Formats: sequence, C-alpha cells, structure tokens
Amino acid sequence: MGVLRRTSRDIRSDSRLDVLHAVLSAGETTRNEIAQATGLSTATVATVVGELIAEGIVAETKVTVGRIGRPTATLGMNADRGRVVGIDVAETYVSAVMFDTALNQIASVEDTRDEQDQDPDSVVEGIGRVLDRVLEENGVSRRDVLGVGVALPGLVQGPSGVSVVVPHWTWHRVELDRLRERLGLPLVIDNPLRVIATAELWLGRGRYCSSMATINLGTGVGAGIVLEGRVLRGATNSAGEWGHSLLVLDGRPCRCGRRGCVEAYIGAPGIQQTLREIDPTHPLADLELQRDFIAAMAEAADGPEPDPAVRETIARTAYYLGSALADLVAVVNPEIVTLTGWTTWALGDHLLLPTREHVREQAPGRSAHDLQLVVSTVGGNSVATGVATIALERFLADAGLLTTQIPIAL
Amino acid sequence: MGVLRRTSRDIRSDSRLDVLHAVLSAGETTRNEIAQATGLSTATVATVVGELIAEGIVAETKVTVGRIGRPTATLGMNADRGRVVGIDVAETYVSAVMFDTALNQIASVEDTRDEQDQDPDSVVEGIGRVLDRVLEENGVSRRDVLGVGVALPGLVQGPSGVSVVVPHWTWHRVELDRLRERLGLPLVIDNPLRVIATAELWLGRGRYCSSMATINLGTGVGAGIVLEGRVLRGATNSAGEWGHSLLVLDGRPCRCGRRGCVEAYIGAPGIQQTLREIDPTHPLADLELQRDFIAAMAEAADGPEPDPAVRETIARTAYYLGSALADLVAVVNPEIVTLTGWTTWALGDHLLLPTREHVREQAPGRSAHDLQLVVSTVGGNSVATGVATIALERFLADAGLLTTQIPIAL
Ligand SMILES: [Zn+2]
Ligand SMILES: [Zn+2]
Repeated sequence: MGVLRRTSRDIRSDSRLDVLHAVLSAGETTRNEIAQATGLSTATVATVVGELIAEGIVAETKVTVGRIGRPTATLGMNADRGRVVGIDVAETYVSAVMFDTALNQIASVEDTRDEQDQDPDSVVEGIGRVLDRVLEENGVSRRDVLGVGVALPGLVQGPSGVSVVVPHWTWHRVELDRLRERLGLPLVIDNPLRVIATAELWLGRGRYCSSMATINLGTGVGAGIVLEGRVLRGATNSAGEWGHSLLVLDGRPCRCGRRGCVEAYIGAPGIQQTLREIDPTHPLADLELQRDFIAAMAEAADGPEPDPAVRETIARTAYYLGSALADLVAVVNPEIVTLTGWTTWALGDHLLLPTREHVREQAPGRSAHDLQLVVSTVGGNSVATGVATIALERFLADAGLLTTQIPIAL
Repeated sequence: MGVLRRTSRDIRSDSRLDVLHAVLSAGETTRNEIAQATGLSTATVATVVGELIAEGIVAETKVTVGRIGRPTATLGMNADRGRVVGIDVAETYVSAVMFDTALNQIASVEDTRDEQDQDPDSVVEGIGRVLDRVLEENGVSRRDVLGVGVALPGLVQGPSGVSVVVPHWTWHRVELDRLRERLGLPLVIDNPLRVIATAELWLGRGRYCSSMATINLGTGVGAGIVLEGRVLRGATNSAGEWGHSLLVLDGRPCRCGRRGCVEAYIGAPGIQQTLREIDPTHPLADLELQRDFIAAMAEAADGPEPDPAVRETIARTAYYLGSALADLVAVVNPEIVTLTGWTTWALGDHLLLPTREHVREQAPGRSAHDLQLVVSTVGGNSVATGVATIALERFLADAGLLTTQIPIAL
C-alpha cells in the first residue's frame, strides 16, 4: 500500500500520447500545430516526434519550403507500419475489424453467435475464426499484425486473477490462455466499457475535456468513463457498470441476477419488453433477433405514418435513458456524454432530444444545464475500434514509448 | 480548450501533500519514516521538510542522538502556528469547530437552525454568530486565525458563477460577498461532499487507496469521491450527488424536486417515512427534530427488548442503503467506502453488517467482494473537519507551498 503518484516517466508518456492524439485527430499536421494543439513546448514536440518517427509510427509526408524561414514538414501517422485487429465479442455476434496504424478501418468480418451458447471453447473458436477470416480475405500475413485486441463483456479482475463473469460466462485464466494460443499474436483483452472509453479518448472527445462518459447501447448497456484524460477502471476493472445500477428497486428482472437494473429497461431486450407492455400483440413484440428488432423499430418510427406503439416505446425509452443518465450526471458530473453502440446508430436520432430534456429536468441543480449530450463521433463499431487502439497502445508500450494501464496483455 | 496535464509544479505540490499527510497521520515521525511511508526519496523529503519548517507548519520536536550515525530529529505538525475554523451549515444546525494547525480539534459551538428559514441573510448571520462565539468563548483573537472554511449544501459552479441551489436556497455571488464581509477572515467555501472527501483524504483512508467514496448520512445524503489521491469535483462541482440518483423511478417525492431519489429513502426524513409506512401510529413517527428521531431510533433498537417496527425500519434502511451503494460500486467501483455523518454515528453499528451483505449481493459480478465498507475513522463532524482542512490548504497555497483546486476562495 503506497502513495500513488505519476512519475516523470508518465509525463513523457503523456506527452507522447498527446502528440499521437494530435497527429491522429488532425490527419496531417506540423510540429508547430502539434505544439499549439497540445500546449507542449516546441522542443518537447520535436523530441517526441523524433521518437515516434524512429519507431515508424509517425512519418513526414511532405516538406514545404516557404518564402522565409526553414522548410516545414507535414506529419501524419505512418499508416503502413502494420495492422491491428479489434474483435468485439457481443452476445449476438462476434466481429473482427482490421485497422492500419493510423487507425483507419480497412476491413471487417462478422459472424452471428448463438445467444444461448455460453461455452468458452466455442467463444474462443468463434474469435479465432473471425480473426482468420479477416486476415485471409484481405491477404494480410500474421507477420504484419502488430497486435490483436479482444473485448469481452463482463471482464473483471480481482486478487484471484482475471475472470469473465457477466452476463453468464465464467472464464478464468485457463480459457484466456486457450484464447492466446488460438490467436497466436500479441493479445490484449479488456472490458467493452473501458474499450469504448479508450476509443473516445484517442479518436473522439475524451482527451479535450475534464470528464466524459460514453454510453454503449446494445444488448447490454454501460458507460465508459474518462476523467482528466484517463480511463476510469475501478478497483476490480468494473467501473462504468451503470447498466447494472438501479432504475427501479425490485423492478424488472435483469440477466445479471439483480432486479430493476437500467439495462433491463434500455438494453435491446428491455426496449422490446416495453413495447410488449404497451401492446402485447404488436408484430415487433416477438421478433427473435435483437438487432432485427431495433432496426424494425427505427423503420416503423421513421415512416410517414409512424406506428403509435413504437413511438410510445421510444418515448418511454428516452425517459428511462434520461433518468438513468441523470443519475450518472449526479454521481460523476461529466462535461460530455456521448452515445454509441448499435441501438444508438439505429434510434439515436429519435432518442437524443427527449433524452436531453429528461436529463436536464432530473439531474441535480444545474449540473446538466451545460452538459453536452451527443452521439459519438467515433462511428461504426466503437468497441472494435477501441480494443484495436488498446492493441496499438500495447505495441507502443512494448516499444518503450508509453506506459499504459492495460489490464490484461497475454 | 487544452490538454489537461500535471506540471512539474504539481508534482512538487503532491510531494508536499504526501509529506504533510505522513506527518499528520503519524503524529510524531522522522525524515526516514516519511520517506518510507511516502515512497519519496530521502533527498526530496529533506527538501520538503525544510520548506514546511521554514513556513512554521512542521517543527522538530526533539533530537535523539543514537549510538552511531547522525542525530535523528523527531518531526511533528507545529500545532501552534495558528488556528483554522470549519463551519458546517446544515439544514438543522450550524456548527463551528476550531482546530490547531495539526488539525486537532480545540473547541466547537453549535446553534440550531430553523429548518424552514431559507433566507440567505439569516444564514449568513448564523454563520457569523457561531464563528464569533467559538473565538470569543476560547479567547482566540482573529489575528491568530489562518482561515475559515464554510461548507454550504448544494454549492454548484457554472459559467454564470457560483450559486447554492440545493436543497431550496438560491445564493449568488452577492450573498457570498456578504458572507466574506461578515466573517472578515480568509475564507473558502465548498460543497459538503467535496469537504468530507477532503477530510478522508487528509486524515482518513483516502490517500492510500486508488479510489474511495465517503458517504454522508444525515438530513441529506451524498458521496465524496476520491480517485488516485484527488477529490472528484465534476464539471460543475457537483460530482457525488449520489443522494439524488434514483433508487425507485417515480418513487417517493424528494425535496430536490425529483421523485425516487436515494435521499428520499435514507436521509433522516426518509427513514422516518419508512417507519411511518411500517407503523403509522408509532410514537417516533412524528418526532419533529430529525436528530432527536435518529437518536431515539438508536435507543429503541439497542434496548433489551428492541422495538420491532424500529428493527424493521433499520432492516429496510439497510436494504435501501445497500442497494444504492451497489449502484455506486457499479459505476465508480471504489476500493473503499466509508460512512460518516450523524446518522452513521447513531445507527452505523446496526446498519453496517446488513448493508455490507446487500452491497455484495447486488453489485455487479465480484466488484464488491473485496470492497471495504467501514465507518469512517475521521470521527466527529467530518464536514467541519474537512472544510477546516481546505482552509488550511488555502493558507498553504497562499504561502506558495501547494497548488490546489479550491473552487471558491473569497
Ligand atoms: Zn443487471
Ligand atoms: Zn433528490
């Protein structure tokens, strides 16, 4: 038990992260622009850029000679340094997304999963299969892959090691070792909540605000929390499980075993339950696949004659979501809340305005008056993007450029 | 909008805080012991101790000459450097506690407040009166007071300045200026939640864990959150308003205007409401003064034949508290949760064990299995203690020894 303190090493690491983020977000930039964007001195920027160029992460893309002064080099990420793959293991699908080292998406493949199959071996094999496919279909050799990241729902860490316990899976070290063997590449695994926070930190709005929560809306729901440029992990790596905080004491049963969790109301099955309560005979009330259901909801709400039960369901969902977000604002009081995940991509336009009003009404005092509640600018599968970013982070850490808090690198 | 970063100046400030904390918590110590306790180098400790001695904050209390080597100086806080006063403005009372510079409590006075009186002028006068009394009754001159801290419930900060909006008060800058004039001493004001977190950080367990929440149980309830040695303030200085997060959507009306807040169930009036629901004719159900009610509950639960309605009320309160704490564990996932406040001092022994079980059952996965849920070691009025600590912090900041994040120094 000691005092926790950032060392000077961490400050160097922070400077490199700041520079990397500036290059990533600008696409093309210069040393001077980086200094302006980061607040670092030009000398520090020059040193850090030199280190990143030496490692092949950043490259000078062109040199412009102005009328006066020294020539200016344009900098960008060296996209062809290698490939990283992010794998999102969700309840209903497993998806592999391949990125270049500038974190541009190159290709993706997806398999549906049997929602009932909780056997670790078949999950491991499913992950292996999408990785193999995304590499083969794009002619990428394993030698060119710098790392693979896998996001596993419910990952927690305790004194007895690592395990995966939410929603229904029980994994321990042995299954994780099996995963590492199956993939045969440098591997990081993390919880989807930490992962979406990392995506928002590297590619979205997280690095430029004092505090942010990114809300993932899908089968499960949860919050990735970023405070002062760092992802909140918590004592057992399970911070952000806002989806399993209460909306209604002793309310609807949740698949985590508790009753009344936020997820039981605004997870995709919860939204379907709301529709069932409003109209038990509604044709969408018994659609089997969750993403089909959410897509059908969006379609029914968008048409020229919107379905009244669907509209009522969306209105109630916004009330539930706004109430639950007001709780998050009460406890964490973030500057920004971003929404992500496939329910957001389908229903976000319908949910955003009423949700914003409910948050303002219900959050304490004026804590939500200046809150920015927006759809995330990290589009697509932010879980895959985030965990690929962590794989890249791990590569940079192994190269001695960063100190990171990656919980599990295998 | 720039990147947030700790500067080397902050690291020096951190080292001084670490050393101060080590001296405060040890009572008597040596430079070597400080180096061991803080993980700082002996050279850094020697420098910092020198600075603190020069400012009269730390003193060498005796010098021991051993058989070999150089003499060893015993260090302690210089208790007589001056006095600081912490003032706790609660709904039912206003209390002033005077401390020496070693943060030992010297004296306190308390006035009851009319719970209905929300006029800022009378609150200002009430604060002035307890300050005058605690100084006069103890023969302390204003010249010897280094600073005064005032904890005001519901203090928030926004782009339009500072205001006090929860529970029912509306204060703006003009009332705060009036307070500063009335007191005539260096003044800091802060929210009770940030204040109890500061007390736990300086005098309790906050500095030696990665994350902690301190729960205040009184008329209102709330959480002071400490992450990696720093108090979480939030974008509008209102982080930790866990008391106004939901226990039951659309449940009991809360005095904040929302329905179903945690506070409406476990604040003192909420506990009385629970008793009323269990036994509407119970003699304690209509006791007027909240602290009398809580004290009577403790007495009725302690006797040889405990009152069954009182026991049932305590059992339900533990269920409500445990459920609400499980939500806090889900979102923030702290290592330690400490309980403080006058309801804790009266009923903590009855609440602790059942609450602990409810938290473990309801928090996600194993996130609460290793959670330490304990009564705070910062006894007495931790709000007054915490805000006196902030007043001392402000004095040290004015002396150039610390950089702090005190939101309002007047
Ligand atoms: Zn749940
Ligand atoms: Zn409330």
